[in-house]
Amino acid sequence: MLKISDAEFRARCIHLQEYVTHSKCSGVVLFDRDYILYYTGFAFIPTERPIAFVMNSAGERGMFVPRMELEHVQQHTLIEHTAHYLEYPDDPHPMQALKKLMEDMGIKGRVAADGDGYPWIFGYRGPNLSELGEITVWPVRSAIEDQMMVKSPAELNLLRESIRWATLALRLLQRYTRVGLTETQVEKWAGDEATLAMVDAIGPIYRGQSMVTSGAYGIYRGQIGRNASIPHALASNITFQEGDVLVGESTAPIWGYVSELERTMMLGKPSDDQRRFFDHTLAVQDTAFAAFATAKRCCDVDTAVRAYYEKNDLTSYWRHHTGHAIGSRYHEAPFLDKGDQTELKPGMVFTVEPGLYYPPIGGFRHSDMVLILEDGIEIMTYYPRDLDSLTIPA
Amino acid sequence: MLKISDAEFRARCIHLQEYVTHSKCSGVVLFDRDYILYYTGFAFIPTERPIAFVMNSAGERGMFVPRMELEHVQQHTLIEHTAHYLEYPDDPHPMQALKKLMEDMGIKGRVAADGDGYPWIFGYRGPNLSELGEITVWPVRSAIEDQMMVKSPAELNLLRESIRWATLALRLLQRYTRVGLTETQVEKWAGDEATLAMVDAIGPIYRGQSMVTSGAYGIYRGQIGRNASIPHALASNITFQEGDVLVGESTAPIWGYVSELERTMMLGKPSDDQRRFFDHTLAVQDTAFAAFATAKRCCDVDTAVRAYYEKNDLTSYWRHHTGHAIGSRYHEAPFLDKGDQTELKPGMVFTVEPGLYYPPIGGFRHSDMVLILEDGIEIMTYYPRDLDSLTIPA
Repeated sequence: MLKISDAEFRARCIHLQEYVTHSKCSGVVLFDRDYILYYTGFAFIPTERPIAFVMNSAGERGMFVPRMELEHVQQHTLIEHTAHYLEYPDDPHPMQALKKLMEDMGIKGRVAADGDGYPWIFGYRGPNLSELGEITVWPVRSAIEDQMMVKSPAELNLLRESIRWATLALRLLQRYTRVGLTETQVEKWAGDEATLAMVDAIGPIYRGQSMVTSGAYGIYRGQIGRNASIPHALASNITFQEGDVLVGESTAPIWGYVSELERTMMLGKPSDDQRRFFDHTLAVQDTAFAAFATAKRCCDVDTAVRAYYEKNDLTSYWRHHTGHAIGSRYHEAPFLDKGDQTELKPGMVFTVEPGLYYPPIGGFRHSDMVLILEDGIEIMTYYPRDLDSLTIPA
Repeated sequence: MLKISDAEFRARCIHLQEYVTHSKCSGVVLFDRDYILYYTGFAFIPTERPIAFVMNSAGERGMFVPRMELEHVQQHTLIEHTAHYLEYPDDPHPMQALKKLMEDMGIKGRVAADGDGYPWIFGYRGPNLSELGEITVWPVRSAIEDQMMVKSPAELNLLRESIRWATLALRLLQRYTRVGLTETQVEKWAGDEATLAMVDAIGPIYRGQSMVTSGAYGIYRGQIGRNASIPHALASNITFQEGDVLVGESTAPIWGYVSELERTMMLGKPSDDQRRFFDHTLAVQDTAFAAFATAKRCCDVDTAVRAYYEKNDLTSYWRHHTGHAIGSRYHEAPFLDKGDQTELKPGMVFTVEPGLYYPPIGGFRHSDMVLILEDGIEIMTYYPRDLDSLTIPA
C-alpha cells in the first residue's frame, strides 16, 4: 500500500507517548505542520490560523483547528478529540479553545511541546503556552527528530517510489535540454511529462501532501553555467549556452515523502578544466560511499570527504557538508558533517552530495540517496553518474 | 523598474532602525526568511544552516551566513558586514559566529529579534540568543508586521504585475477544463502557458523569489465537486465531471510578491441549488466591497459580511473570515475579521473572499484583491465574476 498505515501512525504516537511519560510530562502539544503530518497523517496548509495536535500521557489524541478545517480533520479516524474555534483573530483569543482542550484531556503542568505557542507566521500573534495556564514547556523537538531519523519499511517504500519518478523527471530534463532553450521551458516539459506519467500510473492512490509541490519535477534552479557556483541559486530563467556546466535536480513528493536526485551535466564537449572537476566530483562521492564501510558516526563520512579535498588541494572549492538525512522534509537531521556525532543506524537515509564550486566555471555536484543497512549501505538512486552519460550534445 | 529599489530597501531599514532606537535596543536580529528578504532583498532557501540579518542602532547592516551562501549574499551591496561559519553542525556551534558579529557591531543587552534564536527547522538544534551572552530579547515581529501592512507604490506595482499573469493563468485554467480531463493535466497546461508567456514578456528582469513556486500558475488544489467544500483541500488529481462546482485560483510570484485571484466556476448547466449559492457568493462579496465605504477598521467589513450570512440564514455554510492582507506572504496581517480592530489605512491590500461551503454540493468563493485608498477602495483584480462568464460547457 502506497501510504503510511493507520497502524504505523498509531505506533508513532505510542513512541511519542512513551517519551512523554518518561519525561514526566502530562501530555504533548505540536504546532509544526511536518510533525502533525508525521503523527496523524493530517496534511494542511499553514496560515494565520493556529492548529495543534495534542496527546495526553494516556495516549488520547486531539486536534485543535479553525472551523474551516473541522470536516477536513474529522476525516482522520485517529483523532479522538477535536476542538475548534470560529476564526483567527477573535476575542477571546482562539488559543483559549486549545487551553480548554488541554484541560479536558488533563494536559497541564509540565507539557512537552515543539514551541512555546503557535509560531507567529503569516501575521499570527498570540500568547505563549506558558501564558495560557499553569504550564511549563518541556522541549520535545530533539526527541521527535531522533524518532524521525530511522525510516520504517513503509517510509522506505515511499522514498523508493519518489526516486522512481524523480529518475524519470531528471531523465526528461536532460533529454530536453538544448542550447538556446530556457531553464523554464525545459523544466516545464520535464516536470509535466513526469508528473502526468506518475499520476497515470499511480493516480487514484497518489497524494503529494507536500508544501513544495504536487507531482514530479526536474529543475535546474538557476544552477546553469557560472550561476551554478552558488549551491543554493534560485530559478533565473537562464538560456542554455554551449559550454555550460549544469546541475539538475529532481524529486516527487509521495504522501509527504521526498527524494533527492542531482546530477552535474555538461552542455557540449567538456573542457579540460570541466573534466577535471567532474572527475573529482565522482571521486569524492566515491570516497563518501566507501567511508560508510567503516564509519560509525555521521562525522566519519564527512571527515573522509574533507580529507579528499585537502589531499587534492580542493579546499577552496568546498562549500558544504557531504549530505543530510531526508524523508518528509527536503533536509533533515542528522547530517553527514564533521560536526555531527550522531551514530549511524540501520534505516537512516542520507543524501551523499559533496560538491565543488569554482565561480569562473560553475558548480559540480551529484546527489544520491543511501540507506544505512546492518552491514554497509544500499545506494537507493540509480541514475548514471559518468561523464559520457551526462554530456548533452551542443 | 520591476523590482524593489535599493533606496526602498534602505528606507525600510531606516524605519526598522528607528523602531530599534525608540525601543532602546542596541540592534535587531532577524531569522525569518521573509523578513530578511523584505529588508535586504536577499532571497534564500531555508535549511538546517542558520542565517540571520542584523542591524545595529547606528543603522549598520550585517548578514550571518554559512560558507556556501557567502558569494550569494555578497551580491547584495546593502550589507556592510558579513560573518560566515563553515557549516552546520560544527564545534564550536555556528551561532558563535553570530555572537561575534553582534559583538563587533555593538549589539548586546536589549536586542530586538523575531525569535530567541534560529528556529529548529530541518533538524537544526542550537542555543537561544539569550544563551549566547548578555542578551535580552525584545520581540519585534509585531512592529515588522505593522510596517509591512502598508504597501509602497513599488510594491503595488509588483502586485499588479502578479495579478496580470494570474489573470492569464486563471483564464487558461478555465479554458482548458473539460469533463473527463484531470485536475493535474489542466493545471499543467494553464500554468505552463501562462509562465512561458510571462517569462517571454518580462523574462530578463523576472525573478520569482518565492518559496511557493517560480512562474505563474492556475490550480484547483482539489477544490472540485464535493471536495471543494473543504476550503483548504489539497491537490488530489480529480477527474472533472459534469455538474462539478470548481474553485480555481491563480497567482504568480514577482520578486517575492504574490497576488490572489479565485473564481467559482460551474462545469455544465448549474442546478437551482448551485445557482442560489453562486448568487449569494456574488452578493456577499458585493456586501464586503460596499462595506469599505464606511469601514474604519478591519472588523467593520467582516461584521457586515457576517450580518449578510445571518440575515439570509447562511451561517451554517460559513467557514472563514472575509479576507486577509497579502504581499510577500500568501496570507498576511491584518485580517478582515470581526476580531481584528486594526485601522484601515491607505496602501493596505486585502483579499475579499467570503465563501459558502455545503458538503453535498461543494464550495463557493471568489477572491479579489482590493487596495485601500484615501477615499474608498480600488478593486485591483478584474476577472469576470458573473455566472455566465464562469460556466464551462460540459
